[in-house]
Amino acid sequence: MYKQLFTTALAFIAISLSVMAQDLKTPTLDDLMSGGKNYWNLQPNTLLTAWWGDRLVQTDRTTITLLRDKDGKAPSARQAFTFTADEVNALLDTEKYGQVVRMTGAEFPYADQTLCLLTTQKATLLYDWQQKRIAWIAPYVKRYGTADFCPATRAAAISRDYNLYVVSADGTEHAVSTDGTREVVYGTSVHRDEFGISKGTYWSPSGRLLAFYRMDQSMVADYPLVDIDHRIAQYAPEKYPMAGMPSHKVTVGIYDTTTGRTIYLDAGDPTDRYFSNISWSPDEKTIYMYEGPRTQDRAELVAYCAETGQRIEVLYTETHDKYVEPLHPITFLPWDGSKFIFQSMRDGYNHLYLYDLKAKQYKQITRGEWVVLDLLGFNTRTRSAIISSTEAGDMRNNTFAVSLATGKRTRLDNGEGCHTHFLSEGEGTWIAGRWSAPKVYREVEVGSTAKPSMTTLASYDSPWRDYTMPEVVSGSLKAADGVTNLYYRLVKPVGFDPQKKYPAVVYVYGGPHARNVEERWNYMARPWEYDMANKGYIIFVLDNRGSCDRGRDFENVTHRHLGREEMRDQMCGVAYLRSLPYVDADRLGVHGWSFGGFMTTNLMCSYPDVFKVGVAGGPVIDWKYYEVMYGERYMDTPEENPEGYAEASLLTKAKNLKGKLQIIFGYNDPTCVPQHTLSFVRACADAGVQLDLFTYPGQGHNMMGSDMVHLHQRITQYFEDYLK
Amino acid sequence: MYKQLFTTALAFIAISLSVMAQDLKTPTLDDLMSGGKNYWNLQPNTLLTAWWGDRLVQTDRTTITLLRDKDGKAPSARQAFTFTADEVNALLDTEKYGQVVRMTGAEFPYADQTLCLLTTQKATLLYDWQQKRIAWIAPYVKRYGTADFCPATRAAAISRDYNLYVVSADGTEHAVSTDGTREVVYGTSVHRDEFGISKGTYWSPSGRLLAFYRMDQSMVADYPLVDIDHRIAQYAPEKYPMAGMPSHKVTVGIYDTTTGRTIYLDAGDPTDRYFSNISWSPDEKTIYMYEGPRTQDRAELVAYCAETGQRIEVLYTETHDKYVEPLHPITFLPWDGSKFIFQSMRDGYNHLYLYDLKAKQYKQITRGEWVVLDLLGFNTRTRSAIISSTEAGDMRNNTFAVSLATGKRTRLDNGEGCHTHFLSEGEGTWIAGRWSAPKVYREVEVGSTAKPSMTTLASYDSPWRDYTMPEVVSGSLKAADGVTNLYYRLVKPVGFDPQKKYPAVVYVYGGPHARNVEERWNYMARPWEYDMANKGYIIFVLDNRGSCDRGRDFENVTHRHLGREEMRDQMCGVAYLRSLPYVDADRLGVHGWSFGGFMTTNLMCSYPDVFKVGVAGGPVIDWKYYEVMYGERYMDTPEENPEGYAEASLLTKAKNLKGKLQIIFGYNDPTCVPQHTLSFVRACADAGVQLDLFTYPGQGHNMMGSDMVHLHQRITQYFEDYLK
Repeated sequence: MYKQLFTTALAFIAISLSVMAQDLKTPTLDDLMSGGKNYWNLQPNTLLTAWWGDRLVQTDRTTITLLRDKDGKAPSARQAFTFTADEVNALLDTEKYGQVVRMTGAEFPYADQTLCLLTTQKATLLYDWQQKRIAWIAPYVKRYGTADFCPATRAAAISRDYNLYVVSADGTEHAVSTDGTREVVYGTSVHRDEFGISKGTYWSPSGRLLAFYRMDQSMVADYPLVDIDHRIAQYAPEKYPMAGMPSHKVTVGIYDTTTGRTIYLDAGDPTDRYFSNISWSPDEKTIYMYEGPRTQDRAELVAYCAETGQRIEVLYTETHDKYVEPLHPITFLPWDGSKFIFQSMRDGYNHLYLYDLKAKQYKQITRGEWVVLDLLGFNTRTRSAIISSTEAGDMRNNTFAVSLATGKRTRLDNGEGCHTHFLSEGEGTWIAGRWSAPKVYREVEVGSTAKPSMTTLASYDSPWRDYTMPEVVSGSLKAADGVTNLYYRLVKPVGFDPQKKYPAVVYVYGGPHARNVEERWNYMARPWEYDMANKGYIIFVLDNRGSCDRGRDFENVTHRHLGREEMRDQMCGVAYLRSLPYVDADRLGVHGWSFGGFMTTNLMCSYPDVFKVGVAGGPVIDWKYYEVMYGERYMDTPEENPEGYAEASLLTKAKNLKGKLQIIFGYNDPTCVPQHTLSFVRACADAGVQLDLFTYPGQGHNMMGSDMVHLHQRITQYFEDYLK
Repeated sequence: MYKQLFTTALAFIAISLSVMAQDLKTPTLDDLMSGGKNYWNLQPNTLLTAWWGDRLVQTDRTTITLLRDKDGKAPSARQAFTFTADEVNALLDTEKYGQVVRMTGAEFPYADQTLCLLTTQKATLLYDWQQKRIAWIAPYVKRYGTADFCPATRAAAISRDYNLYVVSADGTEHAVSTDGTREVVYGTSVHRDEFGISKGTYWSPSGRLLAFYRMDQSMVADYPLVDIDHRIAQYAPEKYPMAGMPSHKVTVGIYDTTTGRTIYLDAGDPTDRYFSNISWSPDEKTIYMYEGPRTQDRAELVAYCAETGQRIEVLYTETHDKYVEPLHPITFLPWDGSKFIFQSMRDGYNHLYLYDLKAKQYKQITRGEWVVLDLLGFNTRTRSAIISSTEAGDMRNNTFAVSLATGKRTRLDNGEGCHTHFLSEGEGTWIAGRWSAPKVYREVEVGSTAKPSMTTLASYDSPWRDYTMPEVVSGSLKAADGVTNLYYRLVKPVGFDPQKKYPAVVYVYGGPHARNVEERWNYMARPWEYDMANKGYIIFVLDNRGSCDRGRDFENVTHRHLGREEMRDQMCGVAYLRSLPYVDADRLGVHGWSFGGFMTTNLMCSYPDVFKVGVAGGPVIDWKYYEVMYGERYMDTPEENPEGYAEASLLTKAKNLKGKLQIIFGYNDPTCVPQHTLSFVRACADAGVQLDLFTYPGQGHNMMGSDMVHLHQRITQYFEDYLK
């Protein structure tokens, strides 16, 4: 058994083959993009793992194998196990329950039981690999989209047709609500997924209680989207609260699975308020959430009694004259239910704070001009928090253990590049995951959370090693404020000759909550950039002020005038580009999507003599057409900030457009609704200005599947037509 | 007075100025198109006239003058009159009634009274120029869009908010219906304006009775159009019965203004039936209309009792295995209420038939391989019908008097070009109007309907005489059937050099009810063609089989397979084009709108190696998305003709597209709904085929105003980018 495992692991260590340049193929977007026809043929079959408590399990498509025991060692003959999908399927009534097709998503919810959670197209099941039997099986609830499975009880909360249901382990369905409609929705994510919200149900630790969102959006206007995929196109309205317009009202209910009763948290009038980051106390007597007014200049951490819904107290209040944006629920220490960690940018950078419920006070745990990106959990033996942070470098993500007693941080990985680790689920003694760096395509590693000890499980070379690929470099330059360092990547054309002059395209996002230049493989160059580099373009990408993970003031400098500082910084990048002897300053283009579409259109209209060609995707054109939560955070309301909205509106700038601009949007985009682009088209036509346009029927904010390839062929072609 | 009049008339005789070629300007679309900034500055101030009985009146913007008396002579001093808008306005309470701004649309409804019907923005009025007083004034009902004014009673029928009202001469409003909704509409045009229907109310001769349409469209699906011109875009659904889907149900009511009662014609179950061409008997006891089944292979002329609504009899039935399309209401002889004229293509060409109600029989009045285009009315002295026809040439429209006794026809105009005449409203003794011919820009003429005697009132040279304009030639070639003559025009590039090779663009419509090549000025060359000719392109336009005014079999050869014969004919045109030594066969483009958009897209997909570049506007992509009335006439239903729909569908042909194709549509097009273009975009994306797209928010099926210029700049630019 041990030998076999070793062989399997070795198979994943790909050997980089040296290929002579003359044998290299030119990649197409079908080779480069995940929606392309050849992409998955080239991608390595990367080692996938899951945690069974503190044991590491390898989850292949058809085989599951124990890789490491609790102590991080190869499992003993007694501990070792392996089982296959075939062996599970042999036990299944296929007609009734279907078959397990892939086991890559297998979970091991019980550290002390030999049970593996698997799914078929029809069922969710627990397989006992020791006893070789199906320990539990139930109809597959995930078909309802938002299923929230509770391992403790094996019940699932599902939101279906606007109502919330609980399906017990025995398959019985209980209606938590019955009056759900398009106007009033139960159990789904609210506030348009802002404030870190991504779901609408929150099981208590034991699974006895279920907290859920109820959203009354009867007062919210419909945006009239249209679905053409019917015999006659159908109206497909999206409730869309636009900046300054009436917003939805959210309340939080708690359903008791033992009594079937629901109570609501007594949070007062929900008008123009946000409720986010719901979490439970370990004893599930108390429920916590962040509350804030529509102005977003304040956030309060509030405790409620889970039995009565009574408001107990405000534990913590944070204010800022620009905005406060709570994104992380509090996390209790596994060994002390009277203390929890919360995260805050209060000192200018996102850091951990330890709150003591008995003392009603908190202390800062991490500190410095870098940010905590994520709290992975805790090593309960060493009583340290395991975090991901940028401490090792502005463009790096590394995993650290932070002693809660001393605050001492221990870097657990090699400190290079960007690492994405998952913490083991027993005592949190191990982390495993992937990392990459500008010259490292992908490594899979595992190591201790007590001390640096990472071991490489597998290494993967670039899937495009047989193709012509560009050199990608990175550097920093000063922002328009003259002080701040900004980071860029520059993708050089394939076959780069410094004596030549190349056209250059700025790819830009520029909005909050994202950055584009990190020390990942090739500095995060995107597949399309390889395509462009192969066609002789320079691509330049700069993370301007306003982007994420550089601290509060770096981000909120854009407040009330989105686009202004971002464009100033991008123009610093352009000044640098133009200083390069191999850049043809007369052939500059720009491309971006979403916020980057806003930036692209704005740059084309604001610097019509600089950019010759632009392609903007799913752009914001006027922030008054964007939604309340995100939009008002950065812009306040149109009534409060008319000058800011006017300055940021591209409708009035349309007349300045001189270059070739193509705007592309998803015809069914519920995020940047089509009114943005269509209003801009109207403004251009009224001003006698030409622009180009494309839309993908059936697509939302981002193009999926093969349209991704079609889209990028279009984008490339537009530069080929007009910039080359 | 006489002298003054003579001077005025002379002023309209423009003198062609010879300008040296080197002084000529290059026209822009702003000079050439009616939506352009300079178009109206260049256009001649053409002499406008109206009939007051058999007297001809000149209706200038601010002055109205009698031009000719009943006998066609310059008016005597006693008869002559002239009055100005100022003189009318001096009598008006401006605050209450507004001011007469333009008198060009003045009417003279009463041959025996000195009353002129004028409008202000607030009122409709009758001015008595003899007594110099306002004889009658009422609030301007035309603001409701569909106002039907009855001169006999000075009442108006108006359709407003789905209901029908009658406003009496004294301004009192009477509701004819009160239960109108989007689902049930009163008093508007029905059957989507097919079958010659353009309004929904029909006054009886005395104005006592009002026939009107009631349309129940509750069973018709909504097409979800979207209006972006709101704070948040709004749903703007259009009831749109698509081929094969449930259609609306129409009934005809008769409202009695003396009793306020309404009866409905007892026409039976209106499901899947058409009712069109409503007309009254002179004694208003009987009402007539054409009725036909949804299959359109039959039309019956039916008489109903106007008092009871009872169905009296079927006077005439016409059937055809392809389709019968009644387009003209019957017209009673003014001197004999027992006889009427009806028009029919029953012998293969549209001709007049005289129906004798007493004898219950009819006889054919006109005959020949040419078509009656219009029945203008009658000369009651000579007892002849005055018609417009193509008898003088397939590309000509001329006016003839037809003796109802002998059938003898007398051509009244010079037999050249295309004449558009209006018949005098007394005894029908005169016609006046405009004509043009390939070398004649515009002439205004008047003459007798008893014998050829046309007199030119004014002549106008091309408004673009100071601009470089192309030579336009015409000719004929054989259709794909090898027999039929088809006519084309060919616009040569400005500065044409037969030794050079030019790119050529086929402009195409190709559908029924239209032709593009007539002996009008420059053979009907369109403004955009002058723009293209100035940029060095040849434009070629051919009226294929399936277009209008060439007889029934010429038109209906396309039945059940729209596009097939039309494209074959267009390819005959292309073969001719390619045979010309100065045409570069490698640079062929195609452009068309609506049916022409269907043809353009079809040609691009069906002959991908012939056409390099195409621009299709508001195209039909699949006839299943087009409406019932027009669509099923030519294609039957998708269930009845699945092969025909499949053959004509461009969704399956999308994959064949090789050239550059741009599709442009009005975002609010209620005729060729956006689903056509969007489905094609989806099909192209799915097939990995690129195409270009543009849309004009707020525009319908045809672009209006300055968008017309913007649109054609786009179209030209597309050929400049990819065909030049």
